[in-house]
Amino acid sequence: MKFCSDCGSPVSRRIPPGDLLLRFVCDTCQTIHYQNPKVVVGCLPEWDDGLLLCRRAIDPRIGFWTFPAGFMEQGESAEQAAARETLEEAQAEVEITSLYAVFSLPHISQVYMIFRGTMRSADYGAGNESLEAHLFHPTAIPWETLAFPVIVEALRRYVNDKSRGVFDLHVGTVAPRKV
Amino acid sequence: MKFCSDCGSPVSRRIPPGDLLLRFVCDTCQTIHYQNPKVVVGCLPEWDDGLLLCRRAIDPRIGFWTFPAGFMEQGESAEQAAARETLEEAQAEVEITSLYAVFSLPHISQVYMIFRGTMRSADYGAGNESLEAHLFHPTAIPWETLAFPVIVEALRRYVNDKSRGVFDLHVGTVAPRKV
Repeated sequence: MKFCSDCGSPVSRRIPPGDLLLRFVCDTCQTIHYQNPKVVVGCLPEWDDGLLLCRRAIDPRIGFWTFPAGFMEQGESAEQAAARETLEEAQAEVEITSLYAVFSLPHISQVYMIFRGTMRSADYGAGNESLEAHLFHPTAIPWETLAFPVIVEALRRYVNDKSRGVFDLHVGTVAPRKV
Repeated sequence: MKFCSDCGSPVSRRIPPGDLLLRFVCDTCQTIHYQNPKVVVGCLPEWDDGLLLCRRAIDPRIGFWTFPAGFMEQGESAEQAAARETLEEAQAEVEITSLYAVFSLPHISQVYMIFRGTMRSADYGAGNESLEAHLFHPTAIPWETLAFPVIVEALRRYVNDKSRGVFDLHVGTVAPRKV
């Protein structure tokens, strides 16, 4: 951020009165421009014993597998956002059934909220941001070609829970990929 | 948003190629400025049978009661944020024990993530943004002077769960106050 989105003047980083953190503040109109973590909503779409994943058609990690997930938008609930992403990325209609995981990714200032969802039919397909979509049996998850550590973490727990027949809520922090 | 925070030129609202929603897009450098919901993290700080609330010293709803809550910041986990808010607003150190509720407030594009926390000692006090802090027995919650509908909703469920001795995870949408 270099310029004030309200008045177009330059901004500088300083700690506003009464605050504890550096913020972008307009040198002219004094507007404080807060920056905060973004919510990524995801869905684990279930059909019989299968889980619907899609292969990314966009950067980053083009060609790698993920469950439907994306940034929550203004004016929607988290559940609506998860169902919307599933429709957009995997052309599948789901009924959201429960919150499955909440993972913080502090290194990139994101919070993943991952829901389980039941597909309303066996229909699915590749949305604009996907190369393909596919129903995977839990024993056939493409572990070596998953897109992000948070996807691996959620699916690892999901497959384990499914084998036990008990789905816990998972809350925690996911670290960046080891280089 | 009137000006591009990258280059200072005017922005206009349009649907970028491949997108479905109106976004602020810079007329000069074409940067797309996404706006997304903010995460509010809250904590229900417990000490014996008491719950620590604080009375707001700032607008909106100055003088009304709330549990410690505030906007999640860049680079922190949700649990860290909830503990930080508790320290800032009620001068109490807590160990976060579980995620208690996730409430979407689509009318103001916020998601509340509310944790239970155990106070590490009986020490507490009024932080800069609070007029006072007080440990309330669940039968003595100041229902008539709570700050926001989401605070009422969370405390109503918490008091009910506590009376049953079973704490469920609560996920849903909270509507605006009826006028």
